[in-house]
Amino acid sequence: MATLADDLISLLGAARVSVSDSDLATHSTDKWFAANPPEVVVHAESAEEVSKVLRYAHENRIPVTPQGSRVGYVGGCVPLKGGIALSVARMNRVLEINTADGVAVVQPGVITGELQAQVREKGWFYPPDPASLKECSLGGNVATNAGGPRCLKYGVTRHYVLGLEAVLADGSIVRAGGRCHKNKTGFDLVGLMVGSEGMLGVVTEATLRIIPHPPMRAMLSAGFSSFADAANAVQRILNSGFLPSALEIADKFTLRAAREYLGESVTPQGDAHLLVEIDGQVESVKGELQLLAKLVRELGCTCLEEALGDAACERFWKLRREFSYSLRNTGLIKLNEDIVVPRSRLVDLVDFAEQLQAECGFPVACFGHAGDGNIHVNIMVASMDDPAQRERAEVALDRLFRQVIAWKGAITGEHGVGIAKHRWWKEAVSTEAHQTHLRLKAALDPHGILNPGKFLD
Amino acid sequence: MATLADDLISLLGAARVSVSDSDLATHSTDKWFAANPPEVVVHAESAEEVSKVLRYAHENRIPVTPQGSRVGYVGGCVPLKGGIALSVARMNRVLEINTADGVAVVQPGVITGELQAQVREKGWFYPPDPASLKECSLGGNVATNAGGPRCLKYGVTRHYVLGLEAVLADGSIVRAGGRCHKNKTGFDLVGLMVGSEGMLGVVTEATLRIIPHPPMRAMLSAGFSSFADAANAVQRILNSGFLPSALEIADKFTLRAAREYLGESVTPQGDAHLLVEIDGQVESVKGELQLLAKLVRELGCTCLEEALGDAACERFWKLRREFSYSLRNTGLIKLNEDIVVPRSRLVDLVDFAEQLQAECGFPVACFGHAGDGNIHVNIMVASMDDPAQRERAEVALDRLFRQVIAWKGAITGEHGVGIAKHRWWKEAVSTEAHQTHLRLKAALDPHGILNPGKFLD
Repeated sequence: MATLADDLISLLGAARVSVSDSDLATHSTDKWFAANPPEVVVHAESAEEVSKVLRYAHENRIPVTPQGSRVGYVGGCVPLKGGIALSVARMNRVLEINTADGVAVVQPGVITGELQAQVREKGWFYPPDPASLKECSLGGNVATNAGGPRCLKYGVTRHYVLGLEAVLADGSIVRAGGRCHKNKTGFDLVGLMVGSEGMLGVVTEATLRIIPHPPMRAMLSAGFSSFADAANAVQRILNSGFLPSALEIADKFTLRAAREYLGESVTPQGDAHLLVEIDGQVESVKGELQLLAKLVRELGCTCLEEALGDAACERFWKLRREFSYSLRNTGLIKLNEDIVVPRSRLVDLVDFAEQLQAECGFPVACFGHAGDGNIHVNIMVASMDDPAQRERAEVALDRLFRQVIAWKGAITGEHGVGIAKHRWWKEAVSTEAHQTHLRLKAALDPHGILNPGKFLD
Repeated sequence: MATLADDLISLLGAARVSVSDSDLATHSTDKWFAANPPEVVVHAESAEEVSKVLRYAHENRIPVTPQGSRVGYVGGCVPLKGGIALSVARMNRVLEINTADGVAVVQPGVITGELQAQVREKGWFYPPDPASLKECSLGGNVATNAGGPRCLKYGVTRHYVLGLEAVLADGSIVRAGGRCHKNKTGFDLVGLMVGSEGMLGVVTEATLRIIPHPPMRAMLSAGFSSFADAANAVQRILNSGFLPSALEIADKFTLRAAREYLGESVTPQGDAHLLVEIDGQVESVKGELQLLAKLVRELGCTCLEEALGDAACERFWKLRREFSYSLRNTGLIKLNEDIVVPRSRLVDLVDFAEQLQAECGFPVACFGHAGDGNIHVNIMVASMDDPAQRERAEVALDRLFRQVIAWKGAITGEHGVGIAKHRWWKEAVSTEAHQTHLRLKAALDPHGILNPGKFLD
């Protein structure tokens, strides 16, 4: 009897199919905890190959888990049901960058940061900036509708996808949208694919909108004596008619870890930290930086630093990224939950985190994208292998997610549901919305072969 | 035997149901040519009433055509198959404007311009600005994913819809998305409803994103001796790192009509006209206006005027709107086609329009949103009642749409497909995309009761 691997080799050739131990191990996981090996890994190099794999899997009811660069934070591309891990990482060519049309055409395996750099060389801009941009791929960004700090002003990945080529579960290759910046030709098939976490189709090409690169940027880094003061500053900045490219906040637990890791001298003073980034024309940015600095001073910041230009701003972002490393440096495991609350709930969220910490005994650190209410709540646990600790961590997560849902928040702002948030999915959406998901899934993937075992199952 | 109207009256009460001649006539059409009367008009006042109507229609296989304020340009809400015209115009309350969360919650019958004014009073901003904003409703904007000049910088309606309540064909009331500015909880049901032209569900409430209102705006109005020069200016402005809120262009046929209607003195000189609008902080806008004026002068404009502040800018926009009235003033019927071309094709498009005019004998005037390639191509015909003229007009439209498709353009940028572009729909999308539409439609509306007779039939 022919094995699955034999069948795939006869379809695609031996160079595309692997059952090596290392390949199976590598493709069994992402950056989250869960792992499960596929039976076989396919390294597709074209839409036609993806189509052949899916048509075969559709006919034979074989699970297929699409994978990009596997740096997701929620286990979204873990092949929970075995079968085929379908990697598009080798499809990594930038096919076109056309500033006259304002588009970039890419294969799904292109690394986000590499596209940004190539677009930047031409004086243009691809804004979405997930923290993992040096290693994540655009296919994964599309599958999760990836965000980042700059999405406050510029919007998430969805806002930059003009057209897609995607392969449906039955192997049909669908082109939707195109290279126009506006398009109302029918239903929004592009939007339906974006953020569908590999459950509705496999993206094999994306046409992305690029915009003029603002010639200058600047930042403010401000300390506040309380989180409430920093959250108030966020609202006051917006109420003053500013829409910064980023408005990032960090709480006292984050700052405490930073002081231990980086030292007192480089960590901002106070119990809360605010980063404000603006961009635009050179003189405009210089003037607005002064207006914002004046406003933030009036709002009672305890310290304030300014940065003008790329190099100076990058130093601030580096410090911001080191907040994250500081948490890792505690030796604890960081359960990083990218929840979203209505912006008016920022202070409530941090108060809740403090209470959670007192009750559950885990440090809880909050930082993230304050402008859109998308805060990374990090519950710090010593071990997820110790059953008692794990159980206590799960209780803390339950409390967090239930509170977020009660506030009409979202259980995920940019990472996706994956496996990590499967448990709260049904509470987060209405019964009717869940049923609608099932109807759409059945319409496009009637045998349920695409990324099975995830939030719809 | 009970009539349809009797059944609906027993479901909803007599105050919601009308078969008066005037109501049937009013609800048989929009701003386009086609008209067909419904059997009965329902004036729904709640999601529950919409649900009752749809459940009844679903069970009895009765066509339902959802209607807002019926100012569409493509016949999208004409009840082609009779049945029920389901108006949500009475659901016209602004339920909440919350600047702390950055959201406005509205019923679908709210007029777009009224929401904008209410949001503006609080110092905030709802950017989408379709030309008909004083009479169109937000439900219609959602159904067509409405655009407007400012979408260049700010994006179309889709980018502002955070959450929806919609009733599906079987009467189930689905809430999707919410009031968070980021949300990756499942598939993009919100996006699937936006732009679905009443064929997948009836929107009964929308939660919209609002942003800080920029304190200042300014405009440039420039004449150029050729359309190619004006189109070049568009590309050069973008290449200089500016993303204006609007970049509007008009061709010589439009200007010629304006000179006849408005007089030589108020119409800009030259064979092409460019409007540039920017917004932001006061001093930034003042400085950028001078930078842009310098750039546009260097690019060889034949005349240049500046406007600073709301009142001055509104005068420029008024002139721009009068271009449209000037075309109507010719006494001809304006077939206004909102096609989109890749931005590099702007000059090709206007050259093509000139050729079309020579070959078909109709004046053809092009103006619109140059920044995103969304140009309104107006074919001016004496009569659509005269069969010979009508046939010639249809030939001209065929040539236009086939050329747009050949350029990888879009047959509609903001008006939708409706009836007007039904003929070119199948040429504009791939067979696989068309099949995917049918699968989604069958999944959500298995009996095909919602807005039947439109582009999928």
